[in-house]
Amino acid sequence: MTKPADGRKRVVIEGVDPEIDAGRFPAKRIIGDAVRVEADVFADGHDKVACYLLFRHEGDDTLHRVKMEPLGNDRWRAAFQADKLGNYFYTVAGRVDHFGTWRSDLLKRLEAGQDVSLDLQTGGKLVEQAARHAEGKDAVQLADWAQTLRTRCHAEDTKVLALDADLAEMMERHADTAFETRYERELRVVVDPTRARFSSWYEMFPRSAAIPGKHGTFKDAESRLKNIAGMGFDVLYLPPIHPIGHSFRKGKNNSVTAEAGDVGSPWAIGSEAGGHTAIHPELGTLAGFQHFSAEAKRFGLEIALDIAFQCSPDHPWVKAHPQWFRHRADGSIQYAENPPKKYQDIYPLDFESEDWAALWDALKGVFVFWIEQGVRIFRVDNPHTKAFPFWEWCIAEIKRDYEDVLFLAEAFTRPRVMERLAKVGFSQSYTYFTWRNTKQELTEYMDQLFGTDVKEYFRPNFWPNTPDILPEQLQIGGRPAFISRVVLAATLGTNYGIYGPAYELLENVPTKPGSEEYLNSEKYELKAWDIDSQKSLAPLITAVNRARRENAALQTNYELTFHPVDNPYLICYSKRSAECENTVLVVVNLDPFHVQAGWVELDFSKLGLDAREPFQVHDQLADKRYLWQGTKNYVELSPVEIPAHIFRVMRRIRTEKDFDYYL
Amino acid sequence: MTKPADGRKRVVIEGVDPEIDAGRFPAKRIIGDAVRVEADVFADGHDKVACYLLFRHEGDDTLHRVKMEPLGNDRWRAAFQADKLGNYFYTVAGRVDHFGTWRSDLLKRLEAGQDVSLDLQTGGKLVEQAARHAEGKDAVQLADWAQTLRTRCHAEDTKVLALDADLAEMMERHADTAFETRYERELRVVVDPTRARFSSWYEMFPRSAAIPGKHGTFKDAESRLKNIAGMGFDVLYLPPIHPIGHSFRKGKNNSVTAEAGDVGSPWAIGSEAGGHTAIHPELGTLAGFQHFSAEAKRFGLEIALDIAFQCSPDHPWVKAHPQWFRHRADGSIQYAENPPKKYQDIYPLDFESEDWAALWDALKGVFVFWIEQGVRIFRVDNPHTKAFPFWEWCIAEIKRDYEDVLFLAEAFTRPRVMERLAKVGFSQSYTYFTWRNTKQELTEYMDQLFGTDVKEYFRPNFWPNTPDILPEQLQIGGRPAFISRVVLAATLGTNYGIYGPAYELLENVPTKPGSEEYLNSEKYELKAWDIDSQKSLAPLITAVNRARRENAALQTNYELTFHPVDNPYLICYSKRSAECENTVLVVVNLDPFHVQAGWVELDFSKLGLDAREPFQVHDQLADKRYLWQGTKNYVELSPVEIPAHIFRVMRRIRTEKDFDYYL
Repeated sequence: MTKPADGRKRVVIEGVDPEIDAGRFPAKRIIGDAVRVEADVFADGHDKVACYLLFRHEGDDTLHRVKMEPLGNDRWRAAFQADKLGNYFYTVAGRVDHFGTWRSDLLKRLEAGQDVSLDLQTGGKLVEQAARHAEGKDAVQLADWAQTLRTRCHAEDTKVLALDADLAEMMERHADTAFETRYERELRVVVDPTRARFSSWYEMFPRSAAIPGKHGTFKDAESRLKNIAGMGFDVLYLPPIHPIGHSFRKGKNNSVTAEAGDVGSPWAIGSEAGGHTAIHPELGTLAGFQHFSAEAKRFGLEIALDIAFQCSPDHPWVKAHPQWFRHRADGSIQYAENPPKKYQDIYPLDFESEDWAALWDALKGVFVFWIEQGVRIFRVDNPHTKAFPFWEWCIAEIKRDYEDVLFLAEAFTRPRVMERLAKVGFSQSYTYFTWRNTKQELTEYMDQLFGTDVKEYFRPNFWPNTPDILPEQLQIGGRPAFISRVVLAATLGTNYGIYGPAYELLENVPTKPGSEEYLNSEKYELKAWDIDSQKSLAPLITAVNRARRENAALQTNYELTFHPVDNPYLICYSKRSAECENTVLVVVNLDPFHVQAGWVELDFSKLGLDAREPFQVHDQLADKRYLWQGTKNYVELSPVEIPAHIFRVMRRIRTEKDFDYYL
Repeated sequence: MTKPADGRKRVVIEGVDPEIDAGRFPAKRIIGDAVRVEADVFADGHDKVACYLLFRHEGDDTLHRVKMEPLGNDRWRAAFQADKLGNYFYTVAGRVDHFGTWRSDLLKRLEAGQDVSLDLQTGGKLVEQAARHAEGKDAVQLADWAQTLRTRCHAEDTKVLALDADLAEMMERHADTAFETRYERELRVVVDPTRARFSSWYEMFPRSAAIPGKHGTFKDAESRLKNIAGMGFDVLYLPPIHPIGHSFRKGKNNSVTAEAGDVGSPWAIGSEAGGHTAIHPELGTLAGFQHFSAEAKRFGLEIALDIAFQCSPDHPWVKAHPQWFRHRADGSIQYAENPPKKYQDIYPLDFESEDWAALWDALKGVFVFWIEQGVRIFRVDNPHTKAFPFWEWCIAEIKRDYEDVLFLAEAFTRPRVMERLAKVGFSQSYTYFTWRNTKQELTEYMDQLFGTDVKEYFRPNFWPNTPDILPEQLQIGGRPAFISRVVLAATLGTNYGIYGPAYELLENVPTKPGSEEYLNSEKYELKAWDIDSQKSLAPLITAVNRARRENAALQTNYELTFHPVDNPYLICYSKRSAECENTVLVVVNLDPFHVQAGWVELDFSKLGLDAREPFQVHDQLADKRYLWQGTKNYVELSPVEIPAHIFRVMRRIRTEKDFDYYL
């Protein structure tokens, strides 16, 4: 082993956090976040070290330095503000702090009453060296101080000078960095718009927005915007809006033969009317879509388009680019299969095609087309059946040119695959929340998502239902289950969504027992929804979304804490905002059939409360207030009322007068 | 972002284990170990993947391939045998297994009774491609099979051929690796001699081996070898054997002024008689040392030398290389300090010297000198006060030329510093075991050492005492504490050591209450030890070391499991050998004052036992046998007897006759 260029670089830097897969992938943050970086920094022996977080925005040539603060046990921390979208690069540097060591030793010697004249001279030498690195006024000042330390080392006031804060500050500024160690990797964090972390999604089929029996258009769907925005949603997600294929079109209830008039599945993309950059003629025109988008924006709703990279046999690409598909031994194009099941209405794309590079360009082109129509959010269908290197390239390319675009990965598959999609660039991801019902399941799953490194790059989006999934809990649990599941999704998750109006109208009939498919699913037919129905959960959902908007704690997941309850059907958790000025405590009854009661045992350290004082909790759903005291408090939740509390924990404000109030 | 060279490499490899700091440091193993490597390997979609562990010894040009086996959840594992000392390099490769996918799909189609003639033709194309990669007989055979699959696709026996194991095996051998993904890093494992993991150390001052009042020599120390080897130790560690300085020599009990005749501390190294490559004249000559080493080897004892890189003011380097030391403002050499304390008998070396490269060479030269005298183990004093880059270079240099040399780091300092020393190359490390006494302390500490990645590179060596540390537990607990602490050290640790004869003779008087210094410490004076004393723990230690030698379970730490006991003073743990043919269960009474009894609750899955059958445990210390049954068993340990059990868990062997026996 050859010696290093300079063996005198004594500082070690390791354990930098966040760092995903040795820096292979970026961590994710949103605009305005303080990006906190920690590292283990130390040297041999007893010398003090000084260390710095170095960072720059990709569009910035200057590397900024922030001094790191010690957390104990050789751990250091600093932060920088992410005030621009796009990529920031960061790393850590450290050096032995000779002046700091000298100063700290001097203090100890003075306290022990030792003669320090020689030590003051030694300090003078250090200051003299710094003077040589400095320029202008600083150089003069340092040289002056050095002179005093060396020549007046027996004077009492020189001891005072030696410990002067200005001297320490200037020595820090002109420290010798010749032996500074730089961490071996430059790391990256990608900064997204706020909606990447905090968003409330509503999925609807625009074709069901017309009067019963008629195929809805974008125009019809515009009439639904007020209702959806009124419930407090901010992302409106549409299933694919492209032309639907005719060959092997699926009939009602996923029948393999369509009858005349059957509208087909929007995921069988492409017909003579066009492919992924065309609009299904029955929905309207591109101009109609643009008008719809503009209207949605007016209501504060961002449109999310569903991009499903698969083709019906009638898709223009089948004829124009047959090399993008796999071919069977008889020359025919390979349809989708999960042997022995066959899906002849769908042709998957072949990511091992020799023409892969052109295919990648075409797929990226689909996103760019819709981005140019003003779309900023894409819900990507089954991204796990397309090659990972494609996504990494495609998302990087798009975000280079349009840094505010977001991608939601619809991959309900194995954990490592879902995590990899998040690593390669997806902004949000569907999750297993849909099937996590018990207290243990929920607690363990949240710990996997928020208690590990996964939280650095995987942003969950919780859905209690989707057009593909009507979970058993909703089928059986009815209204109380619909309430508790939407409260859980909206408070455990900062991103959540529902497929409506099926959700608020409590649609819960499956095709058959044991199936999670909706009976008469909207995927294959037009539906008429009575959105003004008395039974609608719209008022409850409105209250949930209001609580989310009004409580910063519900917009972050970095402080999710579960508190024990002595009843397995009651789950209790709290969240705090980044600056801890807002705390929310949620209690949910997971049993849709019985009143459940129990004692919650609060971890006061996570609530910012003083254990000796009573405190007020304000239920954001029922608008009721309770006075609580101590760590143990009683809760009772009935399925016939609202089986959940979303408490804001009020801070007691002491006044000079004879009353207190809560904030 | 530019596209990759080939976007068709669809397989992802991540989460490779072991991997220390992104491959910056090697994992550690001993000769004969199976080096187990795991990784997450997967592709998009539903295609099967095949993956391989690739490895080679540093002296070997060929990269060997071992097929990895699936563990579920996209995790794969394979192993290779470490049959040579030195470095092995390894990585992981993976590809989409097209033939395996086709074969598995074919099976499903056949089971569903579908027509597979087209599928057989598709398979024929795959086999034909493989034939093109193959040569000789294999090529002919594959081409023949391809022909059958393509042309006789309607024949029944072709279905049988398609699923033929020989065909699958040959397709695997000639698989197309054009789109194979290689993990981005090549990782390293360093393979050491067995003693790196399994060693029993005995520390002694040879100068105390003579008749009382006389300075012992190597010759005198030879008379102690039989006794030490008889107790079952295999490493004999000597404090520094170099000339001791005169300037500022410490007197008895660390007095700052030595009296005439005071022998000084062996760690104040260097005098007119020489430095780190010389021998203290009062111990003998180099020839005397060599005779002593040879005798020790004859008794199965390997000598470990103490290397302390610091100099007395009389060390030859002080005059010859003053630039290797720091200088004070008045030109004098800086002695060791921990302000306000001063250690004027010691000059530290300056790792920021401009002449650092020559200093590094000289220090390395010290090791090489002793290696050439036959020494193979070094106990390095305070390595954490020397620069880490020096150790990384020095140990790598030495192990390149002498791969069987071992280094024990004597660093009782902060966790990150101790871990870093292990990462940069130290073979073994002192630990905090010396101060971990309660069940909770011991359990938590073992979890830090063996339950995290630390186990991959940090090999603990547990010492219940050292010449510097007489722990409170031994001072107060007396004989029962001496027994329980040595049993804990020897069974929790695979490497352990004692400082004797102080240990076996139960020396437990500190200089003053609250101090961990021995009264009349051997560090500063000659001691007369009555090694034949009736109170000696030698018989107990002999039994402990025998149990270690005879039970492979005590030579590994990869299966250390703690079992609950309903008494906080009783600790219970088990270990299994790598092949699980030996299981040891240890129970220790941590209370040196009272009889403690309780029920242990065994985790049978870690003991390889059948819960329905009684089993025998054989105490290796008291040579008593017990018949136990079920997971709950009663234990009672008295401090006036042996307050510990080291049970071998016997396996019941059923015979055809009317009796069973235990193995």
